[in-house]
Amino acid sequence: MSIPRTTTPAAAATSNSTLARQLLDTRAQTEWLAKDLTDADAAVQSMPDASPAKWHLAHTTWFFETVILKEHLAGYTVFDQRYAFLFNSYYETLGARHPRPKRGMLTRPSLAEVLDYRAHVNDALEQLLEQKCTAALRDLLILGIHHEQQHQELLLTDILHLFAQNPLYPSFRPGEPLELNASEPTALRWLEFEGGQVRFGHEGPGFSFDCENPAHDRLIEPFALGSRLVTNAEWMEFIDGDGYAAPTLWLSDGWATVARHGWNAPLYWQKRDDQYWSMTLRGLQPVDPAAPVTHVSYFEADAYARFCGLRLPTEFEWELAGTTVPVIGNMGASKRLRPAPAAAKEGLLQMFGDVWEWTQSPFSPYPRYKVADGAVGEYNGKFMNGQYVLKGGSCVTPPDHIRAGYRNFFYPQKRWQFSGLRLAKDL
Amino acid sequence: MSIPRTTTPAAAATSNSTLARQLLDTRAQTEWLAKDLTDADAAVQSMPDASPAKWHLAHTTWFFETVILKEHLAGYTVFDQRYAFLFNSYYETLGARHPRPKRGMLTRPSLAEVLDYRAHVNDALEQLLEQKCTAALRDLLILGIHHEQQHQELLLTDILHLFAQNPLYPSFRPGEPLELNASEPTALRWLEFEGGQVRFGHEGPGFSFDCENPAHDRLIEPFALGSRLVTNAEWMEFIDGDGYAAPTLWLSDGWATVARHGWNAPLYWQKRDDQYWSMTLRGLQPVDPAAPVTHVSYFEADAYARFCGLRLPTEFEWELAGTTVPVIGNMGASKRLRPAPAAAKEGLLQMFGDVWEWTQSPFSPYPRYKVADGAVGEYNGKFMNGQYVLKGGSCVTPPDHIRAGYRNFFYPQKRWQFSGLRLAKDL
Amino acid sequence: MSIPRTTTPAAAATSNSTLARQLLDTRAQTEWLAKDLTDADAAVQSMPDASPAKWHLAHTTWFFETVILKEHLAGYTVFDQRYAFLFNSYYETLGARHPRPKRGMLTRPSLAEVLDYRAHVNDALEQLLEQKCTAALRDLLILGIHHEQQHQELLLTDILHLFAQNPLYPSFRPGEPLELNASEPTALRWLEFEGGQVRFGHEGPGFSFDCENPAHDRLIEPFALGSRLVTNAEWMEFIDGDGYAAPTLWLSDGWATVARHGWNAPLYWQKRDDQYWSMTLRGLQPVDPAAPVTHVSYFEADAYARFCGLRLPTEFEWELAGTTVPVIGNMGASKRLRPAPAAAKEGLLQMFGDVWEWTQSPFSPYPRYKVADGAVGEYNGKFMNGQYVLKGGSCVTPPDHIRAGYRNFFYPQKRWQFSGLRLAKDL
Amino acid sequence: MSIPRTTTPAAAATSNSTLARQLLDTRAQTEWLAKDLTDADAAVQSMPDASPAKWHLAHTTWFFETVILKEHLAGYTVFDQRYAFLFNSYYETLGARHPRPKRGMLTRPSLAEVLDYRAHVNDALEQLLEQKCTAALRDLLILGIHHEQQHQELLLTDILHLFAQNPLYPSFRPGEPLELNASEPTALRWLEFEGGQVRFGHEGPGFSFDCENPAHDRLIEPFALGSRLVTNAEWMEFIDGDGYAAPTLWLSDGWATVARHGWNAPLYWQKRDDQYWSMTLRGLQPVDPAAPVTHVSYFEADAYARFCGLRLPTEFEWELAGTTVPVIGNMGASKRLRPAPAAAKEGLLQMFGDVWEWTQSPFSPYPRYKVADGAVGEYNGKFMNGQYVLKGGSCVTPPDHIRAGYRNFFYPQKRWQFSGLRLAKDL
Repeated sequence: MSIPRTTTPAAAATSNSTLARQLLDTRAQTEWLAKDLTDADAAVQSMPDASPAKWHLAHTTWFFETVILKEHLAGYTVFDQRYAFLFNSYYETLGARHPRPKRGMLTRPSLAEVLDYRAHVNDALEQLLEQKCTAALRDLLILGIHHEQQHQELLLTDILHLFAQNPLYPSFRPGEPLELNASEPTALRWLEFEGGQVRFGHEGPGFSFDCENPAHDRLIEPFALGSRLVTNAEWMEFIDGDGYAAPTLWLSDGWATVARHGWNAPLYWQKRDDQYWSMTLRGLQPVDPAAPVTHVSYFEADAYARFCGLRLPTEFEWELAGTTVPVIGNMGASKRLRPAPAAAKEGLLQMFGDVWEWTQSPFSPYPRYKVADGAVGEYNGKFMNGQYVLKGGSCVTPPDHIRAGYRNFFYPQKRWQFSGLRLAKDL
Repeated sequence: MSIPRTTTPAAAATSNSTLARQLLDTRAQTEWLAKDLTDADAAVQSMPDASPAKWHLAHTTWFFETVILKEHLAGYTVFDQRYAFLFNSYYETLGARHPRPKRGMLTRPSLAEVLDYRAHVNDALEQLLEQKCTAALRDLLILGIHHEQQHQELLLTDILHLFAQNPLYPSFRPGEPLELNASEPTALRWLEFEGGQVRFGHEGPGFSFDCENPAHDRLIEPFALGSRLVTNAEWMEFIDGDGYAAPTLWLSDGWATVARHGWNAPLYWQKRDDQYWSMTLRGLQPVDPAAPVTHVSYFEADAYARFCGLRLPTEFEWELAGTTVPVIGNMGASKRLRPAPAAAKEGLLQMFGDVWEWTQSPFSPYPRYKVADGAVGEYNGKFMNGQYVLKGGSCVTPPDHIRAGYRNFFYPQKRWQFSGLRLAKDL
Repeated sequence: MSIPRTTTPAAAATSNSTLARQLLDTRAQTEWLAKDLTDADAAVQSMPDASPAKWHLAHTTWFFETVILKEHLAGYTVFDQRYAFLFNSYYETLGARHPRPKRGMLTRPSLAEVLDYRAHVNDALEQLLEQKCTAALRDLLILGIHHEQQHQELLLTDILHLFAQNPLYPSFRPGEPLELNASEPTALRWLEFEGGQVRFGHEGPGFSFDCENPAHDRLIEPFALGSRLVTNAEWMEFIDGDGYAAPTLWLSDGWATVARHGWNAPLYWQKRDDQYWSMTLRGLQPVDPAAPVTHVSYFEADAYARFCGLRLPTEFEWELAGTTVPVIGNMGASKRLRPAPAAAKEGLLQMFGDVWEWTQSPFSPYPRYKVADGAVGEYNGKFMNGQYVLKGGSCVTPPDHIRAGYRNFFYPQKRWQFSGLRLAKDL
Repeated sequence: MSIPRTTTPAAAATSNSTLARQLLDTRAQTEWLAKDLTDADAAVQSMPDASPAKWHLAHTTWFFETVILKEHLAGYTVFDQRYAFLFNSYYETLGARHPRPKRGMLTRPSLAEVLDYRAHVNDALEQLLEQKCTAALRDLLILGIHHEQQHQELLLTDILHLFAQNPLYPSFRPGEPLELNASEPTALRWLEFEGGQVRFGHEGPGFSFDCENPAHDRLIEPFALGSRLVTNAEWMEFIDGDGYAAPTLWLSDGWATVARHGWNAPLYWQKRDDQYWSMTLRGLQPVDPAAPVTHVSYFEADAYARFCGLRLPTEFEWELAGTTVPVIGNMGASKRLRPAPAAAKEGLLQMFGDVWEWTQSPFSPYPRYKVADGAVGEYNGKFMNGQYVLKGGSCVTPPDHIRAGYRNFFYPQKRWQFSGLRLAKDL
């Protein structure tokens, strides 16, 4: 069985001018995300896992400067020599760097200076793209676009985490949030898949990260997937059913985590006058029962599935199903900035957007996976330990960033991403 | 392709008397292991991961008492009602228990009292086996044997860890250790395997743990496996080649672990007058260059493979190869108690015994894996997070305990087990 | 023997208008300190011990609003009801509060909004002082002035700590720092004091904190005090003399602290090309050998004294000597913002300003000390555990804030204050 | 005013034979304390603050061997060269040592071997005392006696802590405990003291620790002391009066400690069927309302005093009062091993024995205190930070070990000693 693959937009770049437009649009999109942030909002780091918005703005810029401009644009002048130390993330091959947990100490350079840095690099990138570019250079530029898109999502999840620490519950965007759909959640149906010998991994001309390679075959047993994501209403049943207090529902490490942190609801939930509220990018808002649950860890997702007598899908089951639907959904381009209830429709719903879906697959290398040489080789391979694959993108993922083969990954105890779940079962 | 499976001895038990003999032999073997331990040796817990020897002696006994005797032997008198709380390990379904990190606080009951407890339960088991037993009961008894064998190995690894904390470096057994073979290490050769669609998981009448089930097919690509284990001499080259100081060789979590603990050699190694010595069950001894390296973590094993431009095998590659050789090797029944150099022979060497071999496979459920009901269901499934599969048994594994399909698992940072590695590569 | 006491300026306030001027001058001084800080500089918390500058600006304002305006100014409108929770420091009697280690999460309200808050409260204070005030109210206002002055100093030490985490080493004030005096340090001489029965503690009309009360007599044995502070040059001799590596010089807790943190020089020192540099409020600057050492802990000060075969003074010895000289020195009003070398003069030098001087006296209650009722009672008494008294003020202490009887206190391991030492010996 | 001092028995040693008898009696007493301990009981360390009983037995022996026999007994043969490393406590001047938190790892040497070590050293000491001894040597021997007596008490408090971790609640001594006195607590009366200029510190021929020196005068204001210790019944009123939940009663560090550990009663207390029970050296026993409360921290003692509107005495107030009564009480020689209710008598009761009494005095040097040279100088001086003085000895203090001038010291959060309190107030 062979599955037709969608091609990510970046791969369609056939001319320098198209690539230039994509690149500069992406850069502008990042700046647009930061437009309502104050200098302080952009500077503070709310936990070691998160980075300040300013750091995301600068690091993505440093990536273009270091990996591309310094090597490939004759006469390029580095904006500030000291930034190489400040804004390297984790590339051992690219020199020493400021320690991750101290990113929030950098009140200088200011947000305004970092925006100047971005403009300087944008100008140089535009200049570079007026020249003839090798295929290898174009590949690096496309990687830079996708890298920047990843940080767009992180900027939003990190800002949400920061604002959630503030008893004033600031909104990321001024103005009223979109109204919630007060309708009932769509009933869950089961979509069946036959499985068989299936080809996975990236093929064809579009962009992919190294960890999506190489293409290879796997045997998949027949399975069924829930038609939609698990909802907040369903999660409240888990809470009311003492799911957080039943050790046999949990992985051993999960149960220890619940005990250590006293978890009894998803991250950002709080109860006020017997109703659940949740911190969102629109400030503190009532939890929408029909919307997908989000900000749950792998441990919670796995315990919930066991509570239902079901399980999470593997990444391969998800991917096989994901290739049968178009890559559209409630994603970052929308103004919603929150997961939305499933439409009252047939078929497989909410596969892309809304929330990243936890799978039961550890983030491991595909057969014959090779780490690339140099700094690019540090992109994914060195994180292949202790993390789980998530699929499908979220309500803050750039829409041209995601594809069925995309493998996101987080540690099972992390909750600050827009992470939720879809149920699966054996047939 | 179908692989012939060896049958573990326990499964051959066709009569109560055979089963009784196996059971009582196993019990006696545990007591034999403890024969040179003092009351203090048996009481102290050297770290939260380890348990006191006395605890192993009592916990395995509690398992028979709680899961079998109380349910199935009419008129059985519990030895001491308070032991249920003291010696439950982690079975949430079997009630509250003494916290794991405080197992070393139990200076009472004494070692002698725990041996009395063992005798009491042994008598009752003998009595039970004189009666007619259902198949389900016989399965539980066999599970009890294998459970006890696992704790025999842990008793030895935990005692080694305890003795390694003592500047007097006590020997587990009085008397001189076996002499080391001063010969050169056997040269490494590569054994090639074609792969294809292969059946894995337990089939047939023998015993298996739930996590080895159900049998299922997988696609395996062609690969080669090193003919023998990585040696201490080779590990010294890694040290001398600055392997512990080269971040790009390491997984990100591994590098953080190296930095946190200042690792620069396997656990238990120390340098004296320019020579490496290592704590062993025979006390502090010179490191044997020809013997397999042991007490290395997954992180180290993985970094070493990358240092060689190679990789670790998957658990399936290992298992496919493991079924081609008999289940014999340097195991717990020997008096050596240390890994031994590979023989100067053709073929696949040291697959069973010597050291557990790290694989690159996270410990995950097989397709259609189901957790059993009740306490037995807490045996493996709840540990399927963040751990890696190890194969083949070690120099302290009971020889009738291991099989090619056996899946051991530990966290990637753990080093106190007899864990080493074998190299693999793609073809 | 009776010692004449200086009277702190605040106590001279005989009219509302004088008090108003002092109050508004103090408030303006705080705002002047913050004038070159960005919104980000003012928001970030560099460690749990430190607070963001914005928090200092708001907390001192909240103090006036909560303790004074809400009670005493009819018709006063609270600026923002939510600030009571955000800006209470540790007053259990004044309600719940935002947790101290999370002060740096408050990117909102912005620095500009906090300055508006200050203006609102300043206006109300001005209005209040146009009315008739009771003595008790005037006492509270004077307490508010002294409270604000304490936070002026903390604002500076906390900003220094923040900027020291930034590899760009920002300067608190633009422009060049004052030039260093390249002269030799003044030689140390010994000033002798007879002791006897001496009266300590606050007496007379001036302001004092509760912990300076009540006045009482003590017996003091003859002693001598160093004529000046210990210098950086002398500290380098301690380093070169392996003072940080000699356990017998240290208190047991001190030695453990040295080992835990790897201390080998004062906080903020670093060695570049064989020369010591130190982070200062003027950015990274060469260490001035003739200037007093600063940013050393009690443990270091005590070890240094033992290294010299001498000791630290008690707080009472210091105070007895301190009353013999005028309260003038290198303090916050100067533009220097760093400790300065001692003048080449006779007599007791550098008693006020430059650096807080560690004494060997634990911060304990005076005989018959009574904690005040209400929130004011939480000011000092509850901190009388595990801390040492420091005397004399520093280069960033407001000059009209200090007096000989003033008792500052910090934990013995703390180094981020401008803390140094003066030697003493028995006669 | 001058206070007559009692002379501690050790100081009365005027002949070698008397000294020999005292020494060997003390040694025998230590062995008697250990007589019912198993090898495991004697080996385990229940927390870093505590040491195994075997370690106390060996360390006190090492002290005599290292400080006395190796220097002063010609031809003395060290029992085992390796013990110097194992059993040095904290003497930096006496070489490297086994880390304190790992004392419980030493399952070898066994308890029997350590008792052999004791016998070997006892023989040598006897031999030494048959020779002519210098005064300095005799002083060292007397110090050794007092050192051993301190460890006798610690052996008991550490064993109690160990047994309290065991859900079987072992008794230190077989057989029934003494019956409790069911009588009502004696009413609290106030004993008044005039104060004045008082001489403190050791004078005369008897033994004292260096920290009790030199003698010096102090001014003491008039005060009153409670006639007896605070009782368990009174402590229950504190619990019922929400004392553990009222932040304004507590020192800031104390309140943080209460919150961190969830303290709501003294250490070792537990509630069963609405009655308080407490772990004792006689196993788990009902709390006796009339007996003094014990196993409370300084923080709790201080909060309790504030709850009563009173305060703790200073060490000098206590000492002044302590010199007015004979040094008798419920001490280690009794078989009770628990604090006892106050007798229904006039005067100052329970000053010696029962429980160590927290004072509000930090453990600080007396004026002109000098640390001795060499290892003896590490005895007290280096601990003069962050600890409080306790007075009067406890129910497990050897009776000839205590005196009014004796200064014991512990950190304010520690509770595993027999520590309680007596109230004081200003007059």
